Amino acid sequence: MNEKILERLEKQINFIREADKEKFIGRQTYLTGAQRKENDAEHAWHLALMTILLSEYSNEEIDVLKTITMVLIHDLVEIYAGDTYAYDDEAQKTQKEREQKAADKIFGILPDDQKNKLRAVFEEFEAYETPESRFAHVLDNFQPMMLNDYTDGKAWREHEVRESQIMKRNEKTSSGSKVLWEYAKKMFIEKNIEKGNIIR
Amino acid sequence: MNEKILERLEKQINFIREADKEKFIGRQTYLTGAQRKENDAEHAWHLALMTILLSEYSNEEIDVLKTITMVLIHDLVEIYAGDTYAYDDEAQKTQKEREQKAADKIFGILPDDQKNKLRAVFEEFEAYETPESRFAHVLDNFQPMMLNDYTDGKAWREHEVRESQIMKRNEKTSSGSKVLWEYAKKMFIEKNIEKGNIIR
Repeated sequence: MNEKILERLEKQINFIREADKEKFIGRQTYLTGAQRKENDAEHAWHLALMTILLSEYSNEEIDVLKTITMVLIHDLVEIYAGDTYAYDDEAQKTQKEREQKAADKIFGILPDDQKNKLRAVFEEFEAYETPESRFAHVLDNFQPMMLNDYTDGKAWREHEVRESQIMKRNEKTSSGSKVLWEYAKKMFIEKNIEKGNIIR
Repeated sequence: MNEKILERLEKQINFIREADKEKFIGRQTYLTGAQRKENDAEHAWHLALMTILLSEYSNEEIDVLKTITMVLIHDLVEIYAGDTYAYDDEAQKTQKEREQKAADKIFGILPDDQKNKLRAVFEEFEAYETPESRFAHVLDNFQPMMLNDYTDGKAWREHEVRESQIMKRNEKTSSGSKVLWEYAKKMFIEKNIEKGNIIR
């Protein structure tokens, strides 16, 4: 193998090895059976699978490969910045700054062309202004609601989550997918308000 | 939401919820730190990320989206059929039959068009005859070798794995990627034979 290829490949492998740590970043969502919470890698895999199956419900046409890339990498910054729980207002104040520093560090491991490509996709997700990022955010919100409903609202109850917090977090969800938002509102949110799992 | 869309969406969500169980299917590979083994969902996420970064090393041009779809779903059958360890010869005898039945069951949850599409991609992976499936198999072998090397050969030592077993498992790896096979042979296999982690 020539030196140039080897040098490039080693940077890529260093990144892939560092990414392994995402499997240790815990989230607040309980998995099937409600015995164990999810980690970021499992979450990202689930979103990628959902992108393949549900992209037909995006309001606008999306580039599926770009959207999958986005959901696969959107939480890598949490390897250094930690997971910021959706309803932790204090942690959210410093989230942006912590995550920008983390993005410099993690994507900086890659060869320049791939560093720039992945960083751009990450920033696109964060900016929330393109069809792909709108749809990625739909899934990023839909998936934990689906699992919270499936585990009888355990995570919502533990954190005493209010309807207003969920609605605020989802204020742009219908701009990504009217169909998935309509389903989530009825089958996840309203149903769990009725059951007392979400505080009205 | 009209009845037809709702009926289709519910099938898709049932599949996505059932897929959640892949997060409980354990593998033999230790993760960074060698304290905990990997599960299938984490493995599939890692392979999808690797597809994006390493597809340039495929011997033949590949459809990246199709390859990602393949690696994301290739282990779903293990939800019912269990993980068959690469070097468990007894379990391998019944693997094919167990996995075919499992494929009927898991993909059967989806609407027909998506059932057929995902089943075809799964069968393509299994048949090992297209550029995409050759490359997916490269990554499926490369990733655990990379992590086994990173955790100082713990999984290889525990299972007393021999060089001949690894070479047999990788007999077609160079047909998918000469570059990645050359790297793996030198940096993962030969290095760990030297260290006594793999039995010569």
